[in-house]
Amino acid sequence: MNASADRRTSPIITLLTDFGTQDHYVASMKGTILGINPRCNLIDITHQISPHDIKEGAFILANACLSFPKGTIHLGVVDPGVGSLRKPILLVTKNYCFLGPDNGLLTVAARRDNIKQAFALTNPKFFRSFVSTTFHGRDIFAPIAGHLSRGISPKTLGQKIGSWVDLVFENPVVRGNELMGKVVHTDAFGNLITNITQKVLADFVKNKRLVLGVGKTGIQGLREGYWEVKKGDPVALIGSGGLLEISIREGNAGKVLKVRAGAKVRVRVQEKSEEVNLPRQQKATGFARG
Amino acid sequence: MNASADRRTSPIITLLTDFGTQDHYVASMKGTILGINPRCNLIDITHQISPHDIKEGAFILANACLSFPKGTIHLGVVDPGVGSLRKPILLVTKNYCFLGPDNGLLTVAARRDNIKQAFALTNPKFFRSFVSTTFHGRDIFAPIAGHLSRGISPKTLGQKIGSWVDLVFENPVVRGNELMGKVVHTDAFGNLITNITQKVLADFVKNKRLVLGVGKTGIQGLREGYWEVKKGDPVALIGSGGLLEISIREGNAGKVLKVRAGAKVRVRVQEKSEEVNLPRQQKATGFARG
Amino acid sequence: MNASADRRTSPIITLLTDFGTQDHYVASMKGTILGINPRCNLIDITHQISPHDIKEGAFILANACLSFPKGTIHLGVVDPGVGSLRKPILLVTKNYCFLGPDNGLLTVAARRDNIKQAFALTNPKFFRSFVSTTFHGRDIFAPIAGHLSRGISPKTLGQKIGSWVDLVFENPVVRGNELMGKVVHTDAFGNLITNITQKVLADFVKNKRLVLGVGKTGIQGLREGYWEVKKGDPVALIGSGGLLEISIREGNAGKVLKVRAGAKVRVRVQEKSEEVNLPRQQKATGFARG
Repeated sequence: MNASADRRTSPIITLLTDFGTQDHYVASMKGTILGINPRCNLIDITHQISPHDIKEGAFILANACLSFPKGTIHLGVVDPGVGSLRKPILLVTKNYCFLGPDNGLLTVAARRDNIKQAFALTNPKFFRSFVSTTFHGRDIFAPIAGHLSRGISPKTLGQKIGSWVDLVFENPVVRGNELMGKVVHTDAFGNLITNITQKVLADFVKNKRLVLGVGKTGIQGLREGYWEVKKGDPVALIGSGGLLEISIREGNAGKVLKVRAGAKVRVRVQEKSEEVNLPRQQKATGFARG
Repeated sequence: MNASADRRTSPIITLLTDFGTQDHYVASMKGTILGINPRCNLIDITHQISPHDIKEGAFILANACLSFPKGTIHLGVVDPGVGSLRKPILLVTKNYCFLGPDNGLLTVAARRDNIKQAFALTNPKFFRSFVSTTFHGRDIFAPIAGHLSRGISPKTLGQKIGSWVDLVFENPVVRGNELMGKVVHTDAFGNLITNITQKVLADFVKNKRLVLGVGKTGIQGLREGYWEVKKGDPVALIGSGGLLEISIREGNAGKVLKVRAGAKVRVRVQEKSEEVNLPRQQKATGFARG
Repeated sequence: MNASADRRTSPIITLLTDFGTQDHYVASMKGTILGINPRCNLIDITHQISPHDIKEGAFILANACLSFPKGTIHLGVVDPGVGSLRKPILLVTKNYCFLGPDNGLLTVAARRDNIKQAFALTNPKFFRSFVSTTFHGRDIFAPIAGHLSRGISPKTLGQKIGSWVDLVFENPVVRGNELMGKVVHTDAFGNLITNITQKVLADFVKNKRLVLGVGKTGIQGLREGYWEVKKGDPVALIGSGGLLEISIREGNAGKVLKVRAGAKVRVRVQEKSEEVNLPRQQKATGFARG
C-alpha cells in the first residue's frame, strides 16, 4: 500500500530548510501550502541545516527521502542565491517530486531515486501574487508544492530542462595501501559519518581485519554494534545509512576525538605486527601520522 | 478554495509559545486539543519565543498569521501573568480566530486582519476539569481551541468585551534630515529586521539614494536582493515582510555588525559629496556618529 | 468523543526520542510509519532528550502521555543499548500502547495508565526488510507503530512477557523533621520540578506553613501562582503536573539559584521563631546548612 494508491489519504510534503524554527518562515511556508491544499500532510525533515550549507542539506535530504512513501513531494530550501538568476526547479524521480533551488541541494537525493524529468519553474501563475526577492520558500516553492500535491501536471509549471546544477559528494580513493575517505557529517550524537560505503569498504579490506585512523585516533576492527565496546570507547561500524561511521559508545565522538565534517579517514588492512593487545583508549597508535 | 469551504478538510490550529521543545508542555497542549477534536491539523509557528517576551511573540505571530487560510485558529501562549487576573481572550478577525492571554501578544497580528469581535473566555465549562495556576496553555487555551475548531460559537465561551491590552510597535520618526527607526527582530540568519516599512522609506527618500547607519556600520543604497553585493558584504533591502532589513550576504549581520534588537537605525538621503567609491567593507563611514 | 470512536479520524502516534531535530533520523521514522499507514497523525513529544538519558525521557513521556486521547500510540526511542540483546517491547495500558526499548523508558508512563499486557516484539515480519544495528527507531519501532495504528493485534507482533526492565523514580523520604526530595527535571524556563507530590507535601506539612531549602536558597510558604511574588523573586508552588516546583517569577530558577536536576530539596514546617519579615531575596536563611 502506498500513499498515492489511497485517494482518501493526504498527500505528503516534506520540508527541509536552513530557516531554523524560531522565526515565522517555516510557518509562512506551511500556511501558504495549506491555503492551496488544506489536505496536505506536512512533515518536517529539518529546518536546522547550517545557514546556506547546500552540501549539508543535500546529505540530510538524501538520507531521509527514501523512507517516504511513493508520491511524496520533497521540498528543500537552502538557497543562498535567492532572488538571483538561479532557477527554481522540479526534479521528477521514480517515486517522488523534488522541489527547490537549482543549486545542487536536490540532486544527491534525486539521483538515488532515478531522475526521470526536470523542469524549470517559470510559470508565475503558480507563484504567490507578490514575489519577494528574499523568501522564495514562501513565494514560489510553497505554492508550487501545494499545486503539485493537488495533482497539477509538472509541464504546466514551466519548461522541461536537460541539465541542472549538480552536486556530487567526493568518493573515497585508494592510495597505496590506504583507503582514503572523509567525514561528511557529524550527527547530533557526535557520530562521525564518512563517505565510505559498506561495499567500498568490503571490496578494500576483503575478509581481513581493518585499522582505521581519524584525527589522532586509531581504531582496530569493524564492529557490529555499539554494545561490542565498553562505554566511552571508540567504535567503527556500518551505520544505518550503509556508511562507515566512527562513534563513542554513549559518548560524543566529534567532541571526544576532536574531529569535524571534512576530516580525513584512512583505512588499512591490519598487519600481523599490529595484532597486540591495545589499551582501551586507542589513541595515537602507529596509524596516526600527525 | 479555502480550508473552511471544504468540509472534509481538517481545521487548522497554529501554536506559538515560549515553551521550547524539550519539555512535555507543547505535546500536552496538542494531546488536549486532539482529545476534543481529533481531526485538527496542528501547525507549529514556533515554541522558541524568548521566555516571557510578549513583544517578540507578537512580532512573529503577526508575520506568520496572514499566510494561513481563512478559518485558521491562531493559538498564542506567551504568558508571564499566567494564573493571575489577566484574562484569557478570543479575538475574532476577518479571517481568523486569535486565542491567548490578554497581554498584547495577539493584538498586533489580529489588527492586521481587522478585529471584529472580542471575548473574555470566562465559561469554565470549556476548560480542562482541573485548571492549574501555571499552565493555562493546556488547561484553558488548548481545550477552547479544540472546541472552537469544532464550530462552537464564541458567544458560548464567555462575554463580549470592548477593550483589551494593546501592544503597538514603535513607529519610526523623522528628526531633522533623518528617518529614525529601530531593529525589531534578529532572525536565525542574523538578518536585522527594522520597523521601517517600504512605504515609510519610499515617502522619506523619494527616488533618491539612501545612506543608512546601524551600530557602527554605514550602508549606501537600497538593493533588490542579496546577489547585488559580494559575499560577506552588508546590504540593505526590503525583506519578505515589507520591512527594511539589513543583512550580510551569506553571513550573520547581527554577529558581524554587533547589533541586536532594539538598536537604532538611521536613514538619510545621500549627499552629492558622498557619491564616491567606497571600500567593500563599508564600516565606520561618516554616517556613524559613535 | 475520543479518537478511536470515530473511524474517520487519524490514529495518533506520538514520538519521543533523543535524536535531535537537525538530522534525518526523525524524518526517516515518520516516512517509514507513513509508508505503512499514511493516515497516521504524527505528533512530536520531543526529540531533545539528552543523548542516552533514559530517565529524562521517562519523565517527559510520563508527563505528556495522559493528555492524549484513548487509542494513542506512544513511541519512545532513547536507546543506548540499540542492537544489543535488549528487547523491543510493547506495553498495552488501559488507554494507550507504549512502544520502545526494554530499558525502563516506557514504564513510568505506562504504569500511570495501568499496564494490562506486555509483549516482546520478536516477529521480524513486521520489521523493516533490512534491520540496522544502530537505528531500530526506523527499522523496528516505526514499522511496528505503523502496523499497530492499522489495528493489528499485539499478539501477532511477538510473545507475551511477564516482566520488563522497570524504572522507578526515587520517592521523597521523611528524615527527622524534614521531608527530603530531589529536583528531577529543570524545564526550558529553568523551573525546578521536584519528586514531591502535592499529596506527599500536604500529608507532611498539614495546614502549617512550610520552609523549603534548595541549593543555597531558602523559601518560605507555598504559593498559588507566580503572581504572588515580585518579578525576580523565588517561589515554591504546585506545578501543572501536581509536583512541587521552585521557580523565579519571570526568571530562570536553575540559573539564578545554581541548581540542577539531582539537587536535594528539603522541606520543613515553619517554626514560630522564623515568622519574621524576610528580605525579598530570601537567600541563605537559617535553613541552608551548607
